[in-house]
Amino acid sequence: MAENKMAEKKMVEEITSMDEDFAQWYTDVVKKAELIGYTSVKGCMVIKPAGYAIWDLIRRQLDERFKDAGVENVYLPMFIPESLLQKEKDHVEGFAPEVAWVTHGGLQPLQERLCVRPTSETLFCDFYKNDVHSYRDLPKVYNQWCSVVRWEKETRPFLRSREFLWQEGHTAHATAEEAQERTIQMLNVYAKFCEEVLAIPMIKGQKTEKEKFAGAVATYTIEALMHDGKALQSGTSHNFGDGFAKAFGIQFADKDNTLKYVHQTSWGMTTRLIGAIIMVHGDNEGLVLPPRVAPVQVCVIPIQQKKEGVLDKAYELRDRLQSVCRVKVDDTDKSPGYKFAEAEMRGYPIRVEIGPRDLEAGKCVLCRRDTREKTEVCLDDLEGEVTKLLEIIQREMLERARAHRDAHTYTAVNMAQFEKIFEEKTGFVKAMWCGEQACEDLIKERLSVTSRCMPFEQEHLADTCVCCGKPAKKMVYWGKAY
Amino acid sequence: MAENKMAEKKMVEEITSMDEDFAQWYTDVVKKAELIGYTSVKGCMVIKPAGYAIWDLIRRQLDERFKDAGVENVYLPMFIPESLLQKEKDHVEGFAPEVAWVTHGGLQPLQERLCVRPTSETLFCDFYKNDVHSYRDLPKVYNQWCSVVRWEKETRPFLRSREFLWQEGHTAHATAEEAQERTIQMLNVYAKFCEEVLAIPMIKGQKTEKEKFAGAVATYTIEALMHDGKALQSGTSHNFGDGFAKAFGIQFADKDNTLKYVHQTSWGMTTRLIGAIIMVHGDNEGLVLPPRVAPVQVCVIPIQQKKEGVLDKAYELRDRLQSVCRVKVDDTDKSPGYKFAEAEMRGYPIRVEIGPRDLEAGKCVLCRRDTREKTEVCLDDLEGEVTKLLEIIQREMLERARAHRDAHTYTAVNMAQFEKIFEEKTGFVKAMWCGEQACEDLIKERLSVTSRCMPFEQEHLADTCVCCGKPAKKMVYWGKAY
Repeated sequence: MAENKMAEKKMVEEITSMDEDFAQWYTDVVKKAELIGYTSVKGCMVIKPAGYAIWDLIRRQLDERFKDAGVENVYLPMFIPESLLQKEKDHVEGFAPEVAWVTHGGLQPLQERLCVRPTSETLFCDFYKNDVHSYRDLPKVYNQWCSVVRWEKETRPFLRSREFLWQEGHTAHATAEEAQERTIQMLNVYAKFCEEVLAIPMIKGQKTEKEKFAGAVATYTIEALMHDGKALQSGTSHNFGDGFAKAFGIQFADKDNTLKYVHQTSWGMTTRLIGAIIMVHGDNEGLVLPPRVAPVQVCVIPIQQKKEGVLDKAYELRDRLQSVCRVKVDDTDKSPGYKFAEAEMRGYPIRVEIGPRDLEAGKCVLCRRDTREKTEVCLDDLEGEVTKLLEIIQREMLERARAHRDAHTYTAVNMAQFEKIFEEKTGFVKAMWCGEQACEDLIKERLSVTSRCMPFEQEHLADTCVCCGKPAKKMVYWGKAY
Repeated sequence: MAENKMAEKKMVEEITSMDEDFAQWYTDVVKKAELIGYTSVKGCMVIKPAGYAIWDLIRRQLDERFKDAGVENVYLPMFIPESLLQKEKDHVEGFAPEVAWVTHGGLQPLQERLCVRPTSETLFCDFYKNDVHSYRDLPKVYNQWCSVVRWEKETRPFLRSREFLWQEGHTAHATAEEAQERTIQMLNVYAKFCEEVLAIPMIKGQKTEKEKFAGAVATYTIEALMHDGKALQSGTSHNFGDGFAKAFGIQFADKDNTLKYVHQTSWGMTTRLIGAIIMVHGDNEGLVLPPRVAPVQVCVIPIQQKKEGVLDKAYELRDRLQSVCRVKVDDTDKSPGYKFAEAEMRGYPIRVEIGPRDLEAGKCVLCRRDTREKTEVCLDDLEGEVTKLLEIIQREMLERARAHRDAHTYTAVNMAQFEKIFEEKTGFVKAMWCGEQACEDLIKERLSVTSRCMPFEQEHLADTCVCCGKPAKKMVYWGKAY
């Protein structure tokens, strides 16, 4: 046991403590859990098998929910001709500074530059313009899974990189009401997915004018609180009204035989969600994965595996558990202590320990990754025990994340309070706002925090704006954001 | 019925007969079955829901087979720095003429040009160089699902476009033997997948030196015959030996503590497979989808749907069938004849017709898309009947495709025969070859056909080369290729 403890200790020592340096802890976990690999393409990352498998589970489960919401998948080109990008003014202003330009195809210079899509509103508009003629062609509720490129200067694995994976939904509707409904519907799909699958509670709300998407009439967002008290924008849903439709000329003949412009929405979530999982659930031993996005939910670790029957029993348990969860056996020649540390680093929700004595007693030990709590269970109904425990872990991880967020959500009614909070702590601050961008700018300047959203669940904390003291219009969540 | 027939006739008239103009038939089907949409990005296509859903089914089922073969998914950047692309000489010569170059990121010119990946050998090498140190790190059996770009001049939907979707597997091994085994293993996975899922029989074999991949020691291929007698290269698997490893310096410490170069492979299949499905199985009524890749396997069409109970019954049948297949009801206000024609155009394997008389008799009509054969079946065991029929269709589609291929496979033992065949027909021609590129070049010049592969199943057709009369080394499949 002494040797195991040392091996375990050694592996853990290789990651920085999160209380000491959260950013370094994050980088260490991302590397030691083998989520990300090295590449000589600046600002880009390799997503390794352990990282990609999480994305695959996100994609599969989110896609199912999309299908239940009537969404169909398509694929559009990755290139946008410059003239197309420029059709909607706000949009091009927002994105032009951070796109990558293709200027040569084969050995020839191109007649027109193409940008690598930073997002595909313009391409979908170009497509809908040709595909939508009558009210019978509406609504279009399309989505694509792809990668996009934004030429960021500072990058961090999963949180901000020059290329990232995402889904982008783009819809076209006959009426403004239907577009607004779809915008909110998809935001709700996102929030529910994050709570139920990623075990991350979300604040749903609307972005201020200052923070909204380039070209949108209204942007809605889900915001999560990370372990270090910083906020992470985790998904957005935009209502474009008929702005893009007018810029691109997307008209349809309505039932009354008049030509009308369509109303559009778009919505997206990205590999950034993997960053959220790490920063909400992780601890000083490494990654902690919610069961529903854990590529390995149960890792069976044989103790004294050279003793007769131990390895065979481990394989037998794996074969039995395969019907209820994603399971593997660690049958490498590493010491049990090292295997324990590695299973913890990789965030497997449950570790099953089985040794010679357990064999005799017809028992094994289940160890939870999230609480590190151990229980001895009878082998007879291992499938049932594991199923039950995975559900408990999933539920309790969400509860703990919610408790952490609530414990780090503060209220301020004047600037003195507001400043004091951010001097001492990091978290969400709820405060009233007059609706003027001047106050938003001033708050950002003085406290280095941004408005995260105007939550759907409004509270009346005071009559006046936290900044200027004029009559308040909205309660806003403020925070330092990734 | 007269009206229905007219509607049906009208829809069918909109596609060119395949005997009249196969290329135009293909284009018509791709458009009328709504697989492809318009885009103003030259040489690129929009894959619409009906097309993407086929790709999704291909991806899902192929990915399962990959996992059974021990493959793990990853994601690498879409950009390749020019210096990286240039490290392997043959490879850069093969690809440089057809890559797209990014020269600006944001508002700044880049210090080094980046190409948009035409294939990712160089990126995987760069990654493995940093990730492989010891024999314990091997093998690496990675795959990625992504899109790639090749600046083609002539493009055709699915068959050849500037951007296309694919998977690319890249592996690294400790020994040459293991790399060769993996190369063949994956070719076999491809061939089996195409036969079992796409119902397309494949010729497996090796490419000649002239036709092999840029940078490979050996390229293996699966080749299919389209309805018009032209060949389609449907998947390739390459053994790189240690050529890339030496160019990139990918070394590992072996068990005997000496430094060795890894041996590598790569293998890919693309959205071109959708083109193969269309051209192997399609007919003058449109698309014909093999059940295993049909997004809609059964379409329930109510007859006289306004009569009491008909629509309800249609929904009931759909609900029952949902447990055994992918099913939908066409409850639009179009005429049954139009619905029939549309279901045929879209290639749904089975159409279920249910009208007031069937309701009374407790029966319905099943109509096969592939043979257009109708059978009346009892509603009691509709699930069983449909399941059985889908299996029969899947099997018979493969059998018909194989019979068509065999009927269009010819043998030539001298140039006169060889020329005569291609004057009159199009198909595969089996002929002996001396192994010299001069003969390959001459055959291409005179007959406009290329060597498709040296099949694993060799036959001894003659002692001498079909072209030069010198001693023959290999039997080769020749054909006109897409």
